[in-house]
Amino acid sequence: LNLPPETFRYLRRVQFAETDLAGIVHFSWYFRYMEEAEHALWRAAGLTIERAGSQTGWPRVAAAFEYKHALHFEDEFVDALRIAAVGRRSIRYAHTFVRGETMIGTGTITTVHVSKRPGEPMKSAEVPQDIVARLQAAVRTAPG
Amino acid sequence: LNLPPETFRYLRRVQFAETDLAGIVHFSWYFRYMEEAEHALWRAAGLTIERAGSQTGWPRVAAAFEYKHALHFEDEFVDALRIAAVGRRSIRYAHTFVRGETMIGTGTITTVHVSKRPGEPMKSAEVPQDIVARLQAAVRTAPG
Amino acid sequence: LNLPPETFRYLRRVQFAETDLAGIVHFSWYFRYMEEAEHALWRAAGLTIERAGSQTGWPRVAAAFEYKHALHFEDEFVDALRIAAVGRRSIRYAHTFVRGETMIGTGTITTVHVSKRPGEPMKSAEVPQDIVARLQAAVRTAPG
Amino acid sequence: LNLPPETFRYLRRVQFAETDLAGIVHFSWYFRYMEEAEHALWRAAGLTIERAGSQTGWPRVAAAFEYKHALHFEDEFVDALRIAAVGRRSIRYAHTFVRGETMIGTGTITTVHVSKRPGEPMKSAEVPQDIVARLQAAVRTAPG
Repeated sequence: LNLPPETFRYLRRVQFAETDLAGIVHFSWYFRYMEEAEHALWRAAGLTIERAGSQTGWPRVAAAFEYKHALHFEDEFVDALRIAAVGRRSIRYAHTFVRGETMIGTGTITTVHVSKRPGEPMKSAEVPQDIVARLQAAVRTAPG
Repeated sequence: LNLPPETFRYLRRVQFAETDLAGIVHFSWYFRYMEEAEHALWRAAGLTIERAGSQTGWPRVAAAFEYKHALHFEDEFVDALRIAAVGRRSIRYAHTFVRGETMIGTGTITTVHVSKRPGEPMKSAEVPQDIVARLQAAVRTAPG
Repeated sequence: LNLPPETFRYLRRVQFAETDLAGIVHFSWYFRYMEEAEHALWRAAGLTIERAGSQTGWPRVAAAFEYKHALHFEDEFVDALRIAAVGRRSIRYAHTFVRGETMIGTGTITTVHVSKRPGEPMKSAEVPQDIVARLQAAVRTAPG
Repeated sequence: LNLPPETFRYLRRVQFAETDLAGIVHFSWYFRYMEEAEHALWRAAGLTIERAGSQTGWPRVAAAFEYKHALHFEDEFVDALRIAAVGRRSIRYAHTFVRGETMIGTGTITTVHVSKRPGEPMKSAEVPQDIVARLQAAVRTAPG
């Protein structure tokens, strides 16, 4: 299977509690898998998306997934992740899921950078360019 | 707030386990809320989406959500659901989430009708017209 | 079925995402059901277990469940909850789950009262007697 | 920290969706972590707990956990698992969770072996001795 070039690959195995009575992974889990992969990319870049006591955050403003084939208990799959777009205040990630040669599905998540102070409403904030540079470097240098 | 007319309204309260360390409902939960509302619509129509031993099913082929405002622990909200499109083999549901006068977000889920026999791959199947008629009647006659 | 007298009854329907590939509710969900019932009791007592910005909390220190019969998709069941013990710094809740005349299982959760200030470790704190009195009154006056 | 000798060690990192508004891992997740470790042990033994189309299964009849310290987002921890008891029809697993030198908590899960045929109620079944032998060998030969 041709995975998109320059992707960060997150390897994951399906756990029992992620399946439903239809015998396959419940569709809501793909959103958690995408988030796990995104946070793994941040760690690979030497970052963490949530520093304790931090006054910034990255809430999600849009999420979507298209399902092609089902995942089953104990399947191993790869979520190949790339940065699809960087806006002034947002980052959009694109995800391609494969199990061996089988395309499982594709998805996107858009996050915005916000500042949050106790007792105040969240405000959107500019995306720090050094964070983008480090994430992009981690994608480029990822094995696979 | 003006909810779309002719919607089925699913009332729900946020539970503790649905929140994350950011203090708000985790974004993956909106997909479960949408599914809960859809299944409640089926029950209101005198149907169930999963009959034990049934050889048909309704897997999801696409799901998306756009987030406007966050939900918090113990918030009560409404998912106003309507049938946005009926294809030969698929149904698309559109969801609008509100908490009081606050728009929380909007989403869609597309399901396909399939037949599944033990030991055979799933095959897409035509959407039964009587099911569509009953779902639409349940939307029209829903209180609110 | 003889439910224990003087219990708070939490009515719940099984949702699709709570089932697993064995076709029954995943065993981890009973712990979430127990917590939902406990928080519903707090609301019935005019309380909330988590006030925004509060410097106290009720973390769980022990949880257990014994499973007798399975729950299935769309089953309606009751979690009958009572306060089993009140210690100086803890409350233990006992839960009995039934679906109609069928005993589903029993469980317990022990919570401790803690004070938490930003930047300091949590410390256990005395259980406020007025909270206990209000919870017990809510159990006694619960319908059913 | 002295982990029990002869344990199977399952290494896991806390994911964002596993936290709650208190900023720590939700207590229900420890039951899923225990199950993940158990299934990893089965795989290490060259087995799977759920063969597609199998007419046997291992439902849980009891589960318990005692919480000592909290886990936080991105923490790495070990679940050290051993077979605590083998009955004629059941296996009980004992779990010890540690993060570095910190004891996080301990738990047990008891599973029974059952046969299940379509359209018939589940019946308990004898525990196959070769499965026990392979699980115990996998515990003994586990690294660490």
